[in-house]
Amino acid sequence: MTVEGLQYAVGMAGTVAFAATAVAAVAPKRIDLFGALVMGVITAIGGGTVRDLILGVPVFWSEDLNYIWVALAASLLAFIANKRMTGRQVYRAMLYLDAAGVALFAIQAAQKTMDLSFAQPLGPILLGVITAIGGGLLRDVLAGNDTLLMRKELYAVPVTLGCITYVILLAMFPAAGLTVGVLSMLLIFCLRAAAIHWHLYVPDTLLTRPVDSKESKK
Amino acid sequence: MTVEGLQYAVGMAGTVAFAATAVAAVAPKRIDLFGALVMGVITAIGGGTVRDLILGVPVFWSEDLNYIWVALAASLLAFIANKRMTGRQVYRAMLYLDAAGVALFAIQAAQKTMDLSFAQPLGPILLGVITAIGGGLLRDVLAGNDTLLMRKELYAVPVTLGCITYVILLAMFPAAGLTVGVLSMLLIFCLRAAAIHWHLYVPDTLLTRPVDSKESKK
Amino acid sequence: MTVEGLQYAVGMAGTVAFAATAVAAVAPKRIDLFGALVMGVITAIGGGTVRDLILGVPVFWSEDLNYIWVALAASLLAFIANKRMTGRQVYRAMLYLDAAGVALFAIQAAQKTMDLSFAQPLGPILLGVITAIGGGLLRDVLAGNDTLLMRKELYAVPVTLGCITYVILLAMFPAAGLTVGVLSMLLIFCLRAAAIHWHLYVPDTLLTRPVDSKESKK
Repeated sequence: MTVEGLQYAVGMAGTVAFAATAVAAVAPKRIDLFGALVMGVITAIGGGTVRDLILGVPVFWSEDLNYIWVALAASLLAFIANKRMTGRQVYRAMLYLDAAGVALFAIQAAQKTMDLSFAQPLGPILLGVITAIGGGLLRDVLAGNDTLLMRKELYAVPVTLGCITYVILLAMFPAAGLTVGVLSMLLIFCLRAAAIHWHLYVPDTLLTRPVDSKESKK
Repeated sequence: MTVEGLQYAVGMAGTVAFAATAVAAVAPKRIDLFGALVMGVITAIGGGTVRDLILGVPVFWSEDLNYIWVALAASLLAFIANKRMTGRQVYRAMLYLDAAGVALFAIQAAQKTMDLSFAQPLGPILLGVITAIGGGLLRDVLAGNDTLLMRKELYAVPVTLGCITYVILLAMFPAAGLTVGVLSMLLIFCLRAAAIHWHLYVPDTLLTRPVDSKESKK
Repeated sequence: MTVEGLQYAVGMAGTVAFAATAVAAVAPKRIDLFGALVMGVITAIGGGTVRDLILGVPVFWSEDLNYIWVALAASLLAFIANKRMTGRQVYRAMLYLDAAGVALFAIQAAQKTMDLSFAQPLGPILLGVITAIGGGLLRDVLAGNDTLLMRKELYAVPVTLGCITYVILLAMFPAAGLTVGVLSMLLIFCLRAAAIHWHLYVPDTLLTRPVDSKESKK
């Protein structure tokens, strides 16, 4: 299997995971099949769409509709699964697939941004993060859930560290693009998998102070 | 009256309805005139703007500001009407105008996407739906209301069925573009009008299970 | 100091204020450093990014990353300040800097839109308003706060009046672009500063009626 083929396979697996976890995240609010399909597709392609709009290039799925067919199929299956069983085991497996997808999409976006020489060196980091978390932000906003920026989950931080690592390592070893990319993806995946496995959160002492409660004490 | 003239007239009537129903939807939260104008304009042009950004073409209202003037005037009138009377009769009439607008904008968007040969065959369906419901989604998110993806109203489903019908019929009868377009619009309008008239909702059995209540029983 | 140099300095000061007030606005919800940086950057560059996407030109920060570096630094400082002190004095100073930034960004956007002959005469007003308040809207939506369209604060109204004034005066005195621009910025700044200083709000009589309470009386 070529590197491109492997990337494509991971990309499709990530698309499945994005769509399926989206349906699972929104299902408790009672949605119909249409809502499930829309949420699945938006979560799967939303981040990359915003990236391509900012880069000023054609949106990626207009040239390869497989991303949308796969997202539709995964959303449909997740909707059916929700009606029939809890599927907690499947959901946990999906979280790890989601981590693989996030790792791949972030570094792919950083690479695409570098190839276009767009806003170096910050652009690849910004657009890597936007691509990885943008779809999930759109989903949460449309579903009326707290966005992940407001949760203490370790989700965006591994992505950001991975993108920064990618940009720095590539500046140091410009000839080793593939190795650097794989290492950066592994970094994101491992950090994210550790956060899933051990339920890691940002500790309270690293958060802003709860200003309201302090004010009310006066 | 030519076909273009009729389309334009329906488009303007739809713009009036989008803006006026937006003001009516947000008014219970107590907004000022400025908020009413912004909500009206965003609802009227939001979906088409997102469509044009994704298509990579100039936004439609930059070439015909009538869409914005009409949206501003309709929002102003709806704001004044809200201050003076309940206008329930007017509101129901607006819902049917809104249905006509949704039908027209969805099929127009599907047609525009096909003319640009963008992401066939899924692109016209996706962008038809985005154009028809995008403005309303933006309005609900900015107003802090539940988006229509979270409500059981039959709104997006008729639009989607109409766009799918349009794409399939046009593939079968490529020479009958106008007839196919009108039929698809009528399909959307009739389904939506039936949903308004008989207060149709997605039945509970077709929704995802209320996971929370089930979890809490354990 | 040249006019361009002064504009650039005010632009950077406005960027600092947008980012710092964003962190202060979101801090009561307890965010981590990453969330603070994202919120600060989105608030500082969000409005201008949407403007450039609609105009179909490269996003402004892709050609001058100082806007992002400054937003990151200001967000970091605001995050640290939040952990160590209340900083009410600093916050009030930031509100006035924010007013200066809003005034500058709105008129700059109107000017950019006119230079591109985009959708005259409404385009410069619409994009002036979008640029000035778009970042704040994105921030509020992502943080789950009420957007400023739902609050009675005098924020968007001064911006709109300033952009309308700019377009009208420039049509009357096309040769006096600089003077007209400065006057329009001063108008926005003074109205906004007055609203901050005297805590001005839109009076209740100018709002839509609280429909819900009236309905429930029946």
